[in-house]
Amino acid sequence: MNHETQPTLKQRLFTIIFYADTPAGKAFDVALIVCILGSVLVVMFDSVKAINQAYDPWLSGFEWFFTILFSLEYLTRIYCSPEPRKYIFSFYGIVDLLSIIPTYLSLFVLNVDYLMVIRLFRVMRLFRILRLSKFVSQANLLVYAVRQSRHKITVFMFSVVVLVTIFGSIMYMIEGPHNGYTSIPRSIYWAIVTMTTVGYGDISPKTDLGQAVAALVMMMGYGILAVPTGIFTAELANAMRNNQVERPCSHCGKKQHEESARYCNACGHSLSD
Amino acid sequence: MNHETQPTLKQRLFTIIFYADTPAGKAFDVALIVCILGSVLVVMFDSVKAINQAYDPWLSGFEWFFTILFSLEYLTRIYCSPEPRKYIFSFYGIVDLLSIIPTYLSLFVLNVDYLMVIRLFRVMRLFRILRLSKFVSQANLLVYAVRQSRHKITVFMFSVVVLVTIFGSIMYMIEGPHNGYTSIPRSIYWAIVTMTTVGYGDISPKTDLGQAVAALVMMMGYGILAVPTGIFTAELANAMRNNQVERPCSHCGKKQHEESARYCNACGHSLSD
Amino acid sequence: MNHETQPTLKQRLFTIIFYADTPAGKAFDVALIVCILGSVLVVMFDSVKAINQAYDPWLSGFEWFFTILFSLEYLTRIYCSPEPRKYIFSFYGIVDLLSIIPTYLSLFVLNVDYLMVIRLFRVMRLFRILRLSKFVSQANLLVYAVRQSRHKITVFMFSVVVLVTIFGSIMYMIEGPHNGYTSIPRSIYWAIVTMTTVGYGDISPKTDLGQAVAALVMMMGYGILAVPTGIFTAELANAMRNNQVERPCSHCGKKQHEESARYCNACGHSLSD
Amino acid sequence: MNHETQPTLKQRLFTIIFYADTPAGKAFDVALIVCILGSVLVVMFDSVKAINQAYDPWLSGFEWFFTILFSLEYLTRIYCSPEPRKYIFSFYGIVDLLSIIPTYLSLFVLNVDYLMVIRLFRVMRLFRILRLSKFVSQANLLVYAVRQSRHKITVFMFSVVVLVTIFGSIMYMIEGPHNGYTSIPRSIYWAIVTMTTVGYGDISPKTDLGQAVAALVMMMGYGILAVPTGIFTAELANAMRNNQVERPCSHCGKKQHEESARYCNACGHSLSD
Repeated sequence: MNHETQPTLKQRLFTIIFYADTPAGKAFDVALIVCILGSVLVVMFDSVKAINQAYDPWLSGFEWFFTILFSLEYLTRIYCSPEPRKYIFSFYGIVDLLSIIPTYLSLFVLNVDYLMVIRLFRVMRLFRILRLSKFVSQANLLVYAVRQSRHKITVFMFSVVVLVTIFGSIMYMIEGPHNGYTSIPRSIYWAIVTMTTVGYGDISPKTDLGQAVAALVMMMGYGILAVPTGIFTAELANAMRNNQVERPCSHCGKKQHEESARYCNACGHSLSD
Repeated sequence: MNHETQPTLKQRLFTIIFYADTPAGKAFDVALIVCILGSVLVVMFDSVKAINQAYDPWLSGFEWFFTILFSLEYLTRIYCSPEPRKYIFSFYGIVDLLSIIPTYLSLFVLNVDYLMVIRLFRVMRLFRILRLSKFVSQANLLVYAVRQSRHKITVFMFSVVVLVTIFGSIMYMIEGPHNGYTSIPRSIYWAIVTMTTVGYGDISPKTDLGQAVAALVMMMGYGILAVPTGIFTAELANAMRNNQVERPCSHCGKKQHEESARYCNACGHSLSD
Repeated sequence: MNHETQPTLKQRLFTIIFYADTPAGKAFDVALIVCILGSVLVVMFDSVKAINQAYDPWLSGFEWFFTILFSLEYLTRIYCSPEPRKYIFSFYGIVDLLSIIPTYLSLFVLNVDYLMVIRLFRVMRLFRILRLSKFVSQANLLVYAVRQSRHKITVFMFSVVVLVTIFGSIMYMIEGPHNGYTSIPRSIYWAIVTMTTVGYGDISPKTDLGQAVAALVMMMGYGILAVPTGIFTAELANAMRNNQVERPCSHCGKKQHEESARYCNACGHSLSD
Repeated sequence: MNHETQPTLKQRLFTIIFYADTPAGKAFDVALIVCILGSVLVVMFDSVKAINQAYDPWLSGFEWFFTILFSLEYLTRIYCSPEPRKYIFSFYGIVDLLSIIPTYLSLFVLNVDYLMVIRLFRVMRLFRILRLSKFVSQANLLVYAVRQSRHKITVFMFSVVVLVTIFGSIMYMIEGPHNGYTSIPRSIYWAIVTMTTVGYGDISPKTDLGQAVAALVMMMGYGILAVPTGIFTAELANAMRNNQVERPCSHCGKKQHEESARYCNACGHSLSD
């Protein structure tokens, strides 16, 4: 038996980088979060003209420092992963890659480095790794409710798209280009601004008929806001009430059962075995 | 027995156009969706000045191509329908007709052809025909909840109309025409913009008293948004809970079971007895 | 026995005006609704400058016609009511009076006649009288849910008032009069515009710190919108679920019981007696 | 036995100031609320230029009068509290101190005295003291539901922060400084204004691509408003339903009964056995 074998460097790196069970792994993950947030702050400051003019060399230096750090980390992840291919094409593998590309691209294309703020998504993974368990279980509940609602939400969103297209075209005909409704796509933009109750006011109806139609769009937007809220609330309440717990039936394997169930409702086998 | 009889052309057309059970019928419906979306895109591009000036002949050509196509389809539907009258006066028969009229009308009335975007409604029918069943059942649930809420929503909408009329008139008296509140209808438009929390800012109160009343309207609009949401959510939750169908267990008597359950989850007895 | 006695004029008027059970009563109520809506439309048109200039004598004539009609109706109600005093000081008695006063007042005070749109409230009563029963029972359910929520809503509204006062004062200090925040009351107005997500943009923060605080106010407004919605939804769902029907216990008199209850849960007496 | 002993001045003051059980205590608390609201009104009026110029000496006088009153009250609270240290470092002890500091500070720093509106928080405590019990129990229910939701809300808020940062950066790249998106922080401010559906319109997209991205942000903001509402509603409904306490009937076994029920409403057996 080789359970006394010293783990290889690769194995130790894997444990440190991909898990947070050991003190070293936890320290690594906390340091990573700090670096991610730090690099995002750097790029934010870099976009503020006054700060940029005063401290540009410093900010550029920091940006490259963090990017090279993340590049090394990315390569190490590939190196120590038991299945590098699987990691590279996983969701987080792609996010890790996309987080470092913009800075390199900015050597050729101006301003593209701001895109690297997508590395904020990495923080989400780290939350999961750090097992902030209460948050994770609650996040799972939310994700479950969202997933349950997806068909209803799709139906709803499709209806909204149809409505804003139709109302956008109608307003284009009523108000016309001289009132700011310069094209149907722009009128659809107005319809979305109005129906979601954002209401910038950069485009707004001037004619009496246009204002009447706009009032109708507003009332609809105000009313149908109830629909996604209703869908999500009902699904979430359902998920919370049922507490459809994970209690796999030993006989037929059905996983989800009501918390109070004593027999599997798919095969009739006792759940207490 | 005449089950060997070859179906007539009319019958075959009917199956292809009105149903999507056969490969030909499915292909027809998919082609139709593509044509509808294509024709809507064409009219959108046509409204953008730069594109219009460069490609007007092409866009007009496409618009007439699609319109003639839909006209032929409409006539074929009437021809092959077993009860043409019933089809013509059905909801979708009217939508089909309204989808082609605007283009013909545009020969006489300027710009009226944009109205043909209502052919987007046709896509909805096609969804149903294509039996995207998960979406359809969810859509039905939403429609059911909306229909259940309709009396409550009507009461609510009537109250909102009374409120915006009264607050519009009050603001007309307080702010007056020189602050943008040029008439009671326009002040009602403002009240709707405010109560639905859209808030363009094209008309906004200038006087202290006007701002105080506006603040009141906002608080009301913010608060009563709860009402349609509450109504719809409660109805939807109700509709979803009822999926817990009444199927009393013959052994222990437990009444509510999941629709898909085959065994009572309280005593393990089969539910099919 | 006097059941053969002919009802007096007073009694017949009372039945016609205050109830809608007889054909005459129903006709009276429908005519009244038409008059109310007509008179509101007249005052709306009167406020539109172009219409006013062209048809002023006609509009004034109509306004006085309706007002005198409603005045006669009001006097008749007092005359034929068995307890005139009770009617005069009832909610609807006061609304009836307030509906006619503005037109008479407009002889002395300019523009005050627009206030008579409050006669729209009278339509609400007529709905009740006409026993549009489905709407009335649903309206009652809504009113019941609102009444159940009133303590929670009061607590919520008080918190909102405290928050907008504090944030308004903070923004007054940060942005100051030269950025549009000319006084604390006006800054509170801004805070209400922002927290209710109306967002006119007539006053908006210019400084970095001001925008950061504004972002905080928006996030709070966006988040706490959940509170009144949650309160109302939960109460409505409760009211709908319990269907706490009116089934007075014959023994102890407790009125509200669950629909499925077989025994009074206050005294244990059977409810089927 | 010393139950006849006269309470000391300190003890009597303590009862009056910290409780509202005695007539004197109640009178004290009501007077305090009046003073708090009065002093907040004074500072509001003081910020209105016209009023300030006309009545400055009076307003300053009132402000100092109230501040000295509250200072004396604060010292008395410390004096008569059995455990002064505990009071000073309690939440309300700190609020009491912060309520008087700004006025003294305004001797050295301009305009800082407006901060004293935080003394409005003191009114909240007084509500509790005055035992407006219905409001307090409802407030507790709300606080309970908020507390139950806090993990879910945190997850949600974190996602929103990530989204506005990413969309803010994207819009900064698309629209650029000449369209008002002068820096990433300001673009994030725009993203918050848009996603919360406030929509001032002080910054709004001008380019086609920018408007398309903005439309996406609006749809997201409109849709995800459902999430906090759903979370809070589900938790509140849960909290309210639980009022249906677990009190199994000893006779028929029905478990859930209303908190106030004295007899089982399924079999009529007394619940007090």
